Amino acid sequence: MITGKNYIGNKLSATGNSTFKTVNPVLNLENTTLFHEASPSEINEAVAIASQAYREYRQVSGSSKALFLRAIATEIEALGDLLIETYTSESGLPQGRAIGERGRTMGQLQQFATLLEEGSWVEASMDTAQKDRRPIPKVDMRKMLIATGPVVVFGASNFPLAFSTAGGDTAAALAAGCPVIVKAHPMHSGTSELVASAIIKAANDTGMPEGVFSHLNGKGIAVGTALVQHPDVKSVAFTGSLKGGKALFDLANKRPEPIPVFAEMGSLNPVVLLPEILEEKAEELGTNYANSIMMGSGQFCTNPGLLIGIKSPGLERFIISLGTAISQQEPQCMLHPVIASNYNNLSDQMQQESHINTVGQYDKSVAENHSRARITSISAQEFISNPTLHQEVFGPYSLIITCENKQQLQEVVSSLEGQLTATIMGTNTEVTTYKNTIDTLTEKVGRILFNGVPTGVEVCPSMHHGGPFPASTDGRFTSVGTGAIKRFVRPVCFQNWPSSLLPQELQNNNSIGLFRYINGNYSRENIKPS
Amino acid sequence: MITGKNYIGNKLSATGNSTFKTVNPVLNLENTTLFHEASPSEINEAVAIASQAYREYRQVSGSSKALFLRAIATEIEALGDLLIETYTSESGLPQGRAIGERGRTMGQLQQFATLLEEGSWVEASMDTAQKDRRPIPKVDMRKMLIATGPVVVFGASNFPLAFSTAGGDTAAALAAGCPVIVKAHPMHSGTSELVASAIIKAANDTGMPEGVFSHLNGKGIAVGTALVQHPDVKSVAFTGSLKGGKALFDLANKRPEPIPVFAEMGSLNPVVLLPEILEEKAEELGTNYANSIMMGSGQFCTNPGLLIGIKSPGLERFIISLGTAISQQEPQCMLHPVIASNYNNLSDQMQQESHINTVGQYDKSVAENHSRARITSISAQEFISNPTLHQEVFGPYSLIITCENKQQLQEVVSSLEGQLTATIMGTNTEVTTYKNTIDTLTEKVGRILFNGVPTGVEVCPSMHHGGPFPASTDGRFTSVGTGAIKRFVRPVCFQNWPSSLLPQELQNNNSIGLFRYINGNYSRENIKPS
Repeated sequence: MITGKNYIGNKLSATGNSTFKTVNPVLNLENTTLFHEASPSEINEAVAIASQAYREYRQVSGSSKALFLRAIATEIEALGDLLIETYTSESGLPQGRAIGERGRTMGQLQQFATLLEEGSWVEASMDTAQKDRRPIPKVDMRKMLIATGPVVVFGASNFPLAFSTAGGDTAAALAAGCPVIVKAHPMHSGTSELVASAIIKAANDTGMPEGVFSHLNGKGIAVGTALVQHPDVKSVAFTGSLKGGKALFDLANKRPEPIPVFAEMGSLNPVVLLPEILEEKAEELGTNYANSIMMGSGQFCTNPGLLIGIKSPGLERFIISLGTAISQQEPQCMLHPVIASNYNNLSDQMQQESHINTVGQYDKSVAENHSRARITSISAQEFISNPTLHQEVFGPYSLIITCENKQQLQEVVSSLEGQLTATIMGTNTEVTTYKNTIDTLTEKVGRILFNGVPTGVEVCPSMHHGGPFPASTDGRFTSVGTGAIKRFVRPVCFQNWPSSLLPQELQNNNSIGLFRYINGNYSRENIKPS
Repeated sequence: MITGKNYIGNKLSATGNSTFKTVNPVLNLENTTLFHEASPSEINEAVAIASQAYREYRQVSGSSKALFLRAIATEIEALGDLLIETYTSESGLPQGRAIGERGRTMGQLQQFATLLEEGSWVEASMDTAQKDRRPIPKVDMRKMLIATGPVVVFGASNFPLAFSTAGGDTAAALAAGCPVIVKAHPMHSGTSELVASAIIKAANDTGMPEGVFSHLNGKGIAVGTALVQHPDVKSVAFTGSLKGGKALFDLANKRPEPIPVFAEMGSLNPVVLLPEILEEKAEELGTNYANSIMMGSGQFCTNPGLLIGIKSPGLERFIISLGTAISQQEPQCMLHPVIASNYNNLSDQMQQESHINTVGQYDKSVAENHSRARITSISAQEFISNPTLHQEVFGPYSLIITCENKQQLQEVVSSLEGQLTATIMGTNTEVTTYKNTIDTLTEKVGRILFNGVPTGVEVCPSMHHGGPFPASTDGRFTSVGTGAIKRFVRPVCFQNWPSSLLPQELQNNNSIGLFRYINGNYSRENIKPS
């Protein structure tokens, strides 16, 4: 059941006066539940119990935390059709997507559980004592990662499950040993509350400390601002707009104790279409890219928003193919009336930029809250000199840039800011011919693809979802895949401790069987007591 | 020879009008060389060639970078007595310290060289394709760390060699594949220029690209500010005061593209003296701590500035022993007249704080630029309520806090900010009795010691030298030990690339023999082509 209340740990609470409802964008009607914004006292209470839970929870064993994460996945599935129906009613996304995203969310939790069960992610490193070293003896040093403290996770509008309440950020933080306070995304507060109830049930069933998870509603910026400014909050995870992410980043840096904000803020995801591959299969690429651009109604942070090519018959064929395919795509509902109107307005504004051409768009009438897919094009010279064209248009939109030659392609690529992804479409030979361009792109992105589409972010250890600013606030960290756990930990070195008084991971006897870095060598061996 | 000029890559340059000299604090006289502050055009040129060198240098093999680092160590040694004489004349530190620190500096460079030769530090991670996976095929994903771009390193006042020109920050950044621009510390610009000449010679001899290293003089904040604000600078490393580090951090976050500042800003390094161990050997501990406090005239970032105990006869004996030992320590010269006067003023000001007692100090007259060692004490209650007492006094100074009981000890520890280190002096039994206090300390520090002194920072993989703010701006990273390389890299994921087109570290054939994370398992094996 959806109550509209906040979870302060196990307790449902609604002491605030401000309320709001979510919207069904397909019906263009408000949903019925009244959600209560968290009050300042509820916010403080949630942080206080998180802070209290931290001491105990950070020391919970990997296998116990794994049970907790697996229980969350089970409880999410047990929410059954109610979750799927609530998801579709709050997002305008189809049932198939809801089911797929639920599977992804459960899979993420399970991947972190597997990581915890294996345990080597703590990066145990030990340099044993050398009592006879000259001129001074070497003392025993051992290091491992420990959890940093309570994390505030902001739900994302575009992935109500996989990047929200029990999404990658929450899974990573809980895996790390950090209590989590979710600021629910106001567009899908019902979905969020259901998932929160699953987490709370899992926490109770697996004996996790009260306060390990709380869930707060908020429509405006007040709740999020108070959370980020709270002295006992130690990091923040966010997926959303550049404006939103940068505001949180600035807020966190202005605290008396600055804290890290891991904001994944989207991207143009440039695609470089090289001449030989276009010559080979321009039509096929046009169709593939139309499908990629339309995925989730273009509301993916990896949506290919920039397609860059050198003038050639192949590029012309690609443009015709893509333009035709896009014009035939049925409009899809967007996540929310505000997102739909933002998209349609920005897409229309872009058409007013000088020298921009529309090369394909859906031309029939578009239903309320649905998006008109559109492909535009412009010369490289215009693109380089017009910063307006470098912004993301969140929705089924892409801009084709036509370059005069290889040199101009390099100039376009050099003019780009940090990106989540870049894609090279080319032959193996072209990888050598265009090495400089590919190197430049590599230096600007978190993930570089060869002959594929950037949409579809595989959840696996080798994923890196995060690029140099402004794609992310900290491109050294990923928000997808098990590597995401590294955002919520820091190393602590234990000097000269007797083995038996160390955390289990650092003791001589490697009872958990971790891979450890011992005196410069990787092994799963025990350390012989000196 | 010391020219007083800047190194813009290989080129000695002095186009600016502003000049300054260093000071010999022992003689209280200026040294002779006139140093030329870098001009804005020199700053821009240094960054421009660093930025140009980055593309090539980040792709230089680990073994070639290792040769470069080893050559730097050799060239530093080849500077011979001139380096040692210049060091002592600019720092007031004795010859033995200079020689020891030179050895440490060379050792750091060699440790990074060894790390590069082995190569696994790039954290190669690969998830191979599963073409028959349902519902969608799994695509090949491979990830490794790459260098982020030009790094500005600020020389530290208190370690003219080990934390300056070719110190840990520079060694780590060069090892990572980042060109380095050193802003020389104005107190030891001659030492810094000599070391810079060694780096430049090593870079030329080992065929590194021009611009991989530059060296700029500056007395005030202008040169450093311009460097940190330059759009082509990608990270900053600093060791020094909280004020200086925080200013750089704020500057870097206000850039259109914020960049990371790794500032190590010092610390109180609290020591908790538990009753049983005091009972056992209060006198021995008093002497040991007097020596630790006096090391380098107290000018170590790990100087134990806070000694916390519970009222007991043992604590009284410790206080007498420490006070007596300190009063007998001959004053040492401090690094610079400004540092000496800052220390003496702040130490005197602290004595004016209410309820503070002096329990020991050097009572005879003190020579110019020398420091008067001092130990004070105060009650836990006063300490908790007076924020002035929580600041670092940079020099041979320590404050003893006397607690009424275990509960008050916990309150004192809870009141502390982030620290580089904390030390527990106790018996094995006391580790259990005081678990809560030790846990609290662990959560606030980068390194926690048992029965030792925090001074003496071992350079090894398991060191972590960096704590939660305000000890460091980013406690997730260390500035000492090979782990320091992680500050200047970020992961990039390569999706769907043919093996032969990938960086060597990620190819199927593991020709360098790296430890890699392949489909969730650690191994040094090759990948069988699919």
